[in-house]
Amino acid sequence: MKQLDALLNPRSIAVIGASADPGKTSGRPISYLLKHGFSGAIYPVNPKASEIQGLTCYASIEALPEAPDVGLVLLNAKRSVDAVRSLSQMGCKAAIVLASGFAEAGEDGQDLQEALKEAAGAMRILGPNTIGLVNLSARIPLSASGALEVSDLPTGHVAVVSQSGGILGALLSRAAGRGVGLSSLISTSNEVDLEVSDFIDYLVDDDNTRVIALYLESVRNPKRFREAAIRARDAGKPLVVFKIGRSEAGASAASSHTGALAGEDRVYDAFFRELGVIRANTFDEFLDIPAVLVSGRKLTGRRVAILTSTGGAGTLIADSLGMNHFDTPAPDANTASQLRALQGNTPTALDRNPIDVTLAGLQPELLRQAIRTLLASDSYDALIVVIGSSGLAMPDLVVGAIQDCLDINDKPVLAYVSPHAPDTLKRLNRAGIPGFSSPESCSAVLEALHFTGQPLPGGRPTPSVELPDLTGLTGGAIDEASAKSLFSRTGIQVPASRVVTCRDEAVQAARELGQPVVLKVLDANLLHKSDIGGVALHQNADTIGARFEQMIQDVGSRIDRRPDRFLVEAMVTGGHELILGANRDALGTAILLGAGGVTAELFKDTTLCLLPEQGGLTLEQAKTMMRKLTTWPLLDGYRGSVHCDTDALAQAIVDFSNLIAALGDRVVTSEINPLFVLPEGHGVVAADAVLVLEQMESDNVEGERRYG
Amino acid sequence: MKQLDALLNPRSIAVIGASADPGKTSGRPISYLLKHGFSGAIYPVNPKASEIQGLTCYASIEALPEAPDVGLVLLNAKRSVDAVRSLSQMGCKAAIVLASGFAEAGEDGQDLQEALKEAAGAMRILGPNTIGLVNLSARIPLSASGALEVSDLPTGHVAVVSQSGGILGALLSRAAGRGVGLSSLISTSNEVDLEVSDFIDYLVDDDNTRVIALYLESVRNPKRFREAAIRARDAGKPLVVFKIGRSEAGASAASSHTGALAGEDRVYDAFFRELGVIRANTFDEFLDIPAVLVSGRKLTGRRVAILTSTGGAGTLIADSLGMNHFDTPAPDANTASQLRALQGNTPTALDRNPIDVTLAGLQPELLRQAIRTLLASDSYDALIVVIGSSGLAMPDLVVGAIQDCLDINDKPVLAYVSPHAPDTLKRLNRAGIPGFSSPESCSAVLEALHFTGQPLPGGRPTPSVELPDLTGLTGGAIDEASAKSLFSRTGIQVPASRVVTCRDEAVQAARELGQPVVLKVLDANLLHKSDIGGVALHQNADTIGARFEQMIQDVGSRIDRRPDRFLVEAMVTGGHELILGANRDALGTAILLGAGGVTAELFKDTTLCLLPEQGGLTLEQAKTMMRKLTTWPLLDGYRGSVHCDTDALAQAIVDFSNLIAALGDRVVTSEINPLFVLPEGHGVVAADAVLVLEQMESDNVEGERRYG
Repeated sequence: MKQLDALLNPRSIAVIGASADPGKTSGRPISYLLKHGFSGAIYPVNPKASEIQGLTCYASIEALPEAPDVGLVLLNAKRSVDAVRSLSQMGCKAAIVLASGFAEAGEDGQDLQEALKEAAGAMRILGPNTIGLVNLSARIPLSASGALEVSDLPTGHVAVVSQSGGILGALLSRAAGRGVGLSSLISTSNEVDLEVSDFIDYLVDDDNTRVIALYLESVRNPKRFREAAIRARDAGKPLVVFKIGRSEAGASAASSHTGALAGEDRVYDAFFRELGVIRANTFDEFLDIPAVLVSGRKLTGRRVAILTSTGGAGTLIADSLGMNHFDTPAPDANTASQLRALQGNTPTALDRNPIDVTLAGLQPELLRQAIRTLLASDSYDALIVVIGSSGLAMPDLVVGAIQDCLDINDKPVLAYVSPHAPDTLKRLNRAGIPGFSSPESCSAVLEALHFTGQPLPGGRPTPSVELPDLTGLTGGAIDEASAKSLFSRTGIQVPASRVVTCRDEAVQAARELGQPVVLKVLDANLLHKSDIGGVALHQNADTIGARFEQMIQDVGSRIDRRPDRFLVEAMVTGGHELILGANRDALGTAILLGAGGVTAELFKDTTLCLLPEQGGLTLEQAKTMMRKLTTWPLLDGYRGSVHCDTDALAQAIVDFSNLIAALGDRVVTSEINPLFVLPEGHGVVAADAVLVLEQMESDNVEGERRYG
Repeated sequence: MKQLDALLNPRSIAVIGASADPGKTSGRPISYLLKHGFSGAIYPVNPKASEIQGLTCYASIEALPEAPDVGLVLLNAKRSVDAVRSLSQMGCKAAIVLASGFAEAGEDGQDLQEALKEAAGAMRILGPNTIGLVNLSARIPLSASGALEVSDLPTGHVAVVSQSGGILGALLSRAAGRGVGLSSLISTSNEVDLEVSDFIDYLVDDDNTRVIALYLESVRNPKRFREAAIRARDAGKPLVVFKIGRSEAGASAASSHTGALAGEDRVYDAFFRELGVIRANTFDEFLDIPAVLVSGRKLTGRRVAILTSTGGAGTLIADSLGMNHFDTPAPDANTASQLRALQGNTPTALDRNPIDVTLAGLQPELLRQAIRTLLASDSYDALIVVIGSSGLAMPDLVVGAIQDCLDINDKPVLAYVSPHAPDTLKRLNRAGIPGFSSPESCSAVLEALHFTGQPLPGGRPTPSVELPDLTGLTGGAIDEASAKSLFSRTGIQVPASRVVTCRDEAVQAARELGQPVVLKVLDANLLHKSDIGGVALHQNADTIGARFEQMIQDVGSRIDRRPDRFLVEAMVTGGHELILGANRDALGTAILLGAGGVTAELFKDTTLCLLPEQGGLTLEQAKTMMRKLTTWPLLDGYRGSVHCDTDALAQAIVDFSNLIAALGDRVVTSEINPLFVLPEGHGVVAADAVLVLEQMESDNVEGERRYG
């Protein structure tokens, strides 16, 4: 952490490859340091100059009078490696490497990036391929971004960490343009050493930072990110993420840009949601949401009062809120009577919502009293003040009236500015009143506030049985009978069954089971059994013999050998079909619950939850997943249908996730499809089971897995 | 039309109730007319003054030296009625009434609004409750909007017609703020006389207008709107609509604001789509889309080239486009080689997409050549140029480079400006290059361009039979047997059936039909028959007798009389279940096709199409509806399932819509639910049928319709 502190708050900076021309990229950093008043030592390094921008220039790193806190390296990729080695040997604490041509540039670049890492030794590195960082709180720009040409840096309490350098400059100027103050701006780019999570950690402890905004192309180290996100959450510092690579086109552009591998977007969604990280859906929201979170005000419900000085815009806001499932109720009787008392002789409709003060003109006292009444009202959880053209003439009056009322309680107060008025927006934001020019932004920031107000899933998983010893499991695919036996020992009900090898055993098994049975070929290496004639439903002791012979022929002709093991199993009928699965992904292992059947499949009615660090899912998490399915009502007695055993389903999800968590990194994929949820009191039954574990070296690998 | 021309281009204007104080609302219109250089006659009318703002003031309307082209009435609601009467009597062509307190203010206001209409006689009225209009092309402001304080009106080719007055000022200032030029701005508000459609008609013939943007709370006269929209379409002038009242909250606010009744949002969606009217989804899009349409450039495909001077922003645009199903392919071999030839020694990645010129710096000739190459390339249908911080220093250079290339062809060229740079955006738009600061706007405008490029459904409906004589149909609900008989005569297959009145007839009917049958109670006034025990499936000659007795009991106990008519019908089995219906709505009669079954019901898998003026739907429209269903693949052989008779389904939709169209305004509602689509070659069968017609005075009404 000390090294990071030296990076963000250096007392001395060496600029390697500095140019005397402030118009050049390599001339800008020193010019910006001087312009923004850096008070520490600046050491330009350039063998071709003796003085640069009024500073003594050094011929080499070795010639520097002391080991600098930070080395800002402006050389090309190859020469940067040498400079980093010299800086490290000298005892420099951290280097910022701007050059591109590393991992993002293919195989040669990857080699160079490894050389860079090696050259750095114990010294920390930001980059390469970074535009640098700006500590706005301390007015220390360590960057070549042209956005630093501005004379006035927008100082405040939002920190931005970006994996894209180009976006950093855009965000700096956009924040300045709308009066959103920043504490730090950091571009991590290729992340050969320091990564986004390191800076989250640092910023959690930074007193100048209240909200941390992350522009991500990918999360390279999910475990570190998870830990940092939890620290931020515990410290009450919200994380807001804009994540690209959402589309295939974007993902491929992202990977060509920084060499990052993009994960699957839905898994990212679950990953962020479960950590309480707010995801911005549009690029505008990426500044909108921090702008409102930084106020620290809390939203505890969804009822919003709209106070407007222009009817049309009030309606527009109400419409947008309604589309996003916020309520805009009329004032309760008490609030309405207080509002009426404010009116005097002004024929103004203060007792409906939007509360329209158009005709009352802009009477500061009326405005102040109306705001105060609405904020204090039990009818509302938040207030949006709409500012029309008339308000623009006296912006301080409106801003002042709102400011005067903020101390009543900590309900959110937003301003929507209807005409084009960038200066008013800026003034509002600077005064601590989040101001917006789009109705959709108002809804989006309220949604973000609402999300941060929700508790994260807590509690401990409560599996129904203690897990059996799993150490004996070999790698690769496990056959259906073994997988079911394992699932059954972890608490998940499976149908009664017999493993058979010949016709007579099959007949005998059907007789013993004494009910309609299913005959299936049993082979760990055959997935999609039904596609090759390896599943026969609705069999009994009279029919199964002939069907057995046929299956041997059908399957045998497809896999070029005689199948030798079969499963005879009590057939599950009735109940509701679901899919329960687990899949290991770059971000962790996701538990997936989905509706079965072709119709639901077309609608992709599935929900994801990533396994937490400490183990399986809790009952509450399981129930949340169930309720998120669009087809949930079908389990819950929709239109007079049977109530399914949803308690047993929740428990099965917990038990399944508990097994998957215990298997840890060994799980490649697992699936119960279909999982039948029977009527209330009858539990759930796993009618099929797949479990594929990581192949271990000690396993006896018998060849390629065959997909029949 | 002449009166409208007098309203938009008056030679003389009387301002009734003018004030000498330009700070007051009633003082503003004259001050704005003078400020923006109106060259015609201005006649202030105010009994208390002899001169106003340097103009001779008249004591009354009667005292005016001539009948003015336009009377701008600034009095309160009651006095406005008198003023309008005087103006009309004098021969004034049109009046603009600003006062509120009319239909939007309840019953008394509604009466006053009718008095206003009556007082106007042959004179046209804009308003009441309007903020007026601005003819920007001729620099004639007839409005009290504070937005007219600006000295420079943004003149151009987008006309805006708004049902909200407050929004008008916001749009004027927003358009000015981003350099989008307007031809006219008109607030219609209460529409006692002139409505949105009148102005569409006028603007279609206005040479200064190329795009018409409509801010709507509701469409009061769908027939007129439809005609005007078709005229606009034929004239090649796109209509862009932002419609509020999308949510319940918004709808109630809209109705309190102008007394408009809000229609159902999905029907509006279909209404606009079928007329080729573009619907803006966000308020920002309401200016974004006209800004791009006004260029007149055409999008014929979905392949977009991105040329960027900053890597991060290029990726961001690619990601947003990908999310919206646009393609960003790499250049083809020919284009790539042309791009490489431009590079010289600059190590720039010109041969992928985004095409990154960051490292090449801003070399105007390179930029120009790259733009030219990409526009000319067969690989792309549109180009987005991303402008980074480096481009801001030399905005004219970038703008100029793009402008130089626009003459190659008419593919769309957009600019995305990554840093905060309102002046650059303004400059771009003024130069005819639509500029945007949000990635989502780029995707939205391309989608709008793509939509306008699609042909509207054409061709003639091809019903399979000539319709029977419908004049004999009585009003109210028609019983299932009669409805089916009618449907069958219009080409829709129904099951073989017999109407029976006693047990013996039921048994006999089951015997004659010779297959499993359904027994249903037959009563036009009973909907939801199955909920009261009025439907029995899977019957045959042996079972139907007892079931018949039971049904008499079950239904009888629920409706307090003995049911006397029943339908015995061949039971339909197999096939895929759909719903086909028709519903009369404020906007017209909508044909609805939906997936049947509970699962699909939860996903609301339905699609709407409004009946066109001239009759039923065409086969092509029917097929488009079918393919829009998410469950369409289930009809089309999904996962090896049976191919359903989709040709017969399309024909059934055409035939059904043909009947509904022929019944015209008489239809209240009609539904075939379920409609079974059988395997290919076996057609479709209507297993139930509902038809409710408007009750006519001549009908023998026997009481309230009972919902069993």
